[in-house]
Amino acid sequence: MFLKNSWYVACTPDEIESKPLGRKICGENIAFYRGNEGQVAAVENFCPHRGAPLSLGYVEDGNLVCGYHGLVMGCDGKTVSMPGQRVRGFPCIKSYAVVERYGFIWVWPGEKELADPALIHHLEWAESPDWAYGGGLYHIKCDYRLMIDNLMDLTHETYVHSSSIGQKEIDEALPTTSVNGDEVITARHMDNIMAPPFWRMALRGNDLADDVPVDRWQICRFTPPSHVMIEVGVAHAGNGGYDAPDHLKASSIVVDFITPETETSHWYFWGMARKFKPDDLALTDTIREGQGKIFGEDLDMLEQQQSNLLTYPERGLLKLNIDSGGVQSRRVLDRLLADEHQLIAKESSVA
Amino acid sequence: MFLKNSWYVACTPDEIESKPLGRKICGENIAFYRGNEGQVAAVENFCPHRGAPLSLGYVEDGNLVCGYHGLVMGCDGKTVSMPGQRVRGFPCIKSYAVVERYGFIWVWPGEKELADPALIHHLEWAESPDWAYGGGLYHIKCDYRLMIDNLMDLTHETYVHSSSIGQKEIDEALPTTSVNGDEVITARHMDNIMAPPFWRMALRGNDLADDVPVDRWQICRFTPPSHVMIEVGVAHAGNGGYDAPDHLKASSIVVDFITPETETSHWYFWGMARKFKPDDLALTDTIREGQGKIFGEDLDMLEQQQSNLLTYPERGLLKLNIDSGGVQSRRVLDRLLADEHQLIAKESSVA
Amino acid sequence: MFLKNSWYVACTPDEIESKPLGRKICGENIAFYRGNEGQVAAVENFCPHRGAPLSLGYVEDGNLVCGYHGLVMGCDGKTVSMPGQRVRGFPCIKSYAVVERYGFIWVWPGEKELADPALIHHLEWAESPDWAYGGGLYHIKCDYRLMIDNLMDLTHETYVHSSSIGQKEIDEALPTTSVNGDEVITARHMDNIMAPPFWRMALRGNDLADDVPVDRWQICRFTPPSHVMIEVGVAHAGNGGYDAPDHLKASSIVVDFITPETETSHWYFWGMARKFKPDDLALTDTIREGQGKIFGEDLDMLEQQQSNLLTYPERGLLKLNIDSGGVQSRRVLDRLLADEHQLIAKESSVA
Repeated sequence: MFLKNSWYVACTPDEIESKPLGRKICGENIAFYRGNEGQVAAVENFCPHRGAPLSLGYVEDGNLVCGYHGLVMGCDGKTVSMPGQRVRGFPCIKSYAVVERYGFIWVWPGEKELADPALIHHLEWAESPDWAYGGGLYHIKCDYRLMIDNLMDLTHETYVHSSSIGQKEIDEALPTTSVNGDEVITARHMDNIMAPPFWRMALRGNDLADDVPVDRWQICRFTPPSHVMIEVGVAHAGNGGYDAPDHLKASSIVVDFITPETETSHWYFWGMARKFKPDDLALTDTIREGQGKIFGEDLDMLEQQQSNLLTYPERGLLKLNIDSGGVQSRRVLDRLLADEHQLIAKESSVA
Repeated sequence: MFLKNSWYVACTPDEIESKPLGRKICGENIAFYRGNEGQVAAVENFCPHRGAPLSLGYVEDGNLVCGYHGLVMGCDGKTVSMPGQRVRGFPCIKSYAVVERYGFIWVWPGEKELADPALIHHLEWAESPDWAYGGGLYHIKCDYRLMIDNLMDLTHETYVHSSSIGQKEIDEALPTTSVNGDEVITARHMDNIMAPPFWRMALRGNDLADDVPVDRWQICRFTPPSHVMIEVGVAHAGNGGYDAPDHLKASSIVVDFITPETETSHWYFWGMARKFKPDDLALTDTIREGQGKIFGEDLDMLEQQQSNLLTYPERGLLKLNIDSGGVQSRRVLDRLLADEHQLIAKESSVA
Repeated sequence: MFLKNSWYVACTPDEIESKPLGRKICGENIAFYRGNEGQVAAVENFCPHRGAPLSLGYVEDGNLVCGYHGLVMGCDGKTVSMPGQRVRGFPCIKSYAVVERYGFIWVWPGEKELADPALIHHLEWAESPDWAYGGGLYHIKCDYRLMIDNLMDLTHETYVHSSSIGQKEIDEALPTTSVNGDEVITARHMDNIMAPPFWRMALRGNDLADDVPVDRWQICRFTPPSHVMIEVGVAHAGNGGYDAPDHLKASSIVVDFITPETETSHWYFWGMARKFKPDDLALTDTIREGQGKIFGEDLDMLEQQQSNLLTYPERGLLKLNIDSGGVQSRRVLDRLLADEHQLIAKESSVA
């Protein structure tokens, strides 16, 4: 159950730097590579000659060459040539709309003609020199929606990440959830508390005292198909919190691109964009390392949760106030999925 | 095909010492932990909030706290509390009767109200200072009944354990099998033979000559659901064998608690209780190490046997005289299983 | 879809040197061993007593003794004896026709009475002192027919083995394919080209200059059930190529015995027989090592191709002129498979 007519993060540029990449996204086997003039391209990972995986081939003159018998595949899924063969009658394979933007390769696994790059949300932190970004990738064996639930209810930090970003005050501050069209926002504010270890590190990173009370905030924004951007930060208490001037706070965006692989697995692109000391590369590394460790703590929990849900498919789960962010996000997804299925049904009846 | 209304060994105390333990037993996913005043407790390994595995949580004030969002689960399967929530309407999860006795944690995976700790057989060796015990745990991918068969027919020692406890004389001495209610007893006596290596080691451990003829015995006792206690030993020949005075023999009980996990896998708690030199801890270690190595020799055989039986489900196996112990044990199990199913059917029709 | 009434390479002598070998061939679980006077023997890997794998046992007096309870199995699948038992009524297990020849153990997984060792093709290179042989074994998770396709279309060398035996001229020289009864022959000749690295090494191995133009040939011979012998070599150009005298060429036979395990996996016995410097053992090792590395390059491609074909079972693959060798080989196989099924159907209706 995933939207196919939507933009997903497929990979990062380094993953296709030296050779093509085979990756399954929303159930589609796709070969990603750099074609003409370094433009990103994506076709089905299936050579029409004998079914070999095209991702084991190489790029020549902007085309993907099958590494088995040398068929030259064009970016549009039509065979360009093959040694000693006339290829006009060769069957086509799917090609996918793909765009490089904001430091990621984005793919539209559904109908190519509907893919409009303007639908990719603007990400200020990825372009402005005031921001720095670091992140990584995990492969997780659970439904991508369990990860959305995870990120739209940060009370789990108190338990899963108790030694880094968790603290009792998260549980005590009820979040508010609002829906704005397709966007779901869950916000929590904790005033006049002591910062937990990860945020003390971040305060020091911005040359701020880490042993004084702070105001802390978490503003989770879900947008379809499965992106969760979380504004997080702490400011020295009493200076306006979220609205405090930059030199009195450590402020970041937790970046989560959640890309379904199958119904029960996904690719999790996680990272953190920060609006302080953007040129401090050592700080970027420190934060990436810390975040990677923290986000790794969720894996066991999510995979065993998935296993439990498969074992007891009939059990209804609770939808508490803290779950509201996830519940509303799934509601948006369900509405869009219904629209997409209706569209497909209409096309079928026309055809 | 396993009895659910019965006591099984679930784990040893060290396995729940520092944190909860998730273990599947007779098809039930169970979280084991120490609750109030260190009492053992067991509930379904499924948080009613979002299906997370409770075994990844921690114990606080005698209750199991879910490690995902902090739901506090009581030992009775009822939610005690959750930060910021009213929990009265939360669905219950199963809780299990569980008892700590004889150095093991015992669980009753069936109907809790039928669980009577008095049904656990008395184990003298586990309480008397005249005895010492050492053992271990193996996870084996075969039907638990193949392990019962294995232990009720010790002719396999000659072949699987030829370098330690096996000897040709085992094959030559036909065992006698008797059934006493739910208990099945297979006994073999070999008089005036030379002891094999493991038993020579045991004789030396009891300060006895190891190069003189001995009388050797093996008395296997199966009791439901799947426990096999085997009295084994050697005595200097001509002193009464099994009935010889303690200072003329090396005498032990091979302890086998066989706990089904699924239809084709089980937890095998093996050990040896000995009635000589009980305070010699080094001897306990030596025996445990030797036994662990010997019992590890069965694993490959049992798992490949299981694989063969799944490949050829239609083939009937032979039931020879040497198989009588296993055959009778399965007959007891089949009768009790029929009783249990009848009980369940009756309850269903009443309800 | 494999022929059962046919000879396959089962293993090499070293694999049964010290103990029996359990191996699945054409879906049959078989235990191979050396029986009476060192003669090879093969029976079902299933003890009629309790279903234990006989391959975990040992050989005594030419019979296979079950390693579980000592049943003594004869080479004909009839139980010979068992300690303390009368075995006359024991059910038989299958035994298989098996022959040692040319340095391999051959098995006929179908009806034993049809197995005629004279049906094994004569292999001159395996007997003549003018030849040397070296090879190895890979287990590959794909339909054995994908390997036949691979070997009957060597244009893949240009892509999969570009750094060793591949060269652009292979693509440019169209092969000719002919069918001679059950044999399929695909031949390619490339005259007056420069030898690729592997063949330069071979030329040096035969004390020939490696920096002069050569004539190169590849003559692939498929014979049922799944053997592909490929005559390959290079001769200093203009001396008759394939027919050049031995001292002006480096000439070999690539040996491929492809033995199905299941529908989607096989055992691949690969090797190279050469007709130069047969006594140079170091050269044999060098070639074996080089070939092992080269043939290992196919594994990923073949296994991912299999995975793709299973994902898209409805897609027809192309049958180009270069595929002709594989297409014709499969046609021979399909005809023989139809014959075999008709034979089985006839036998069933008679019985």
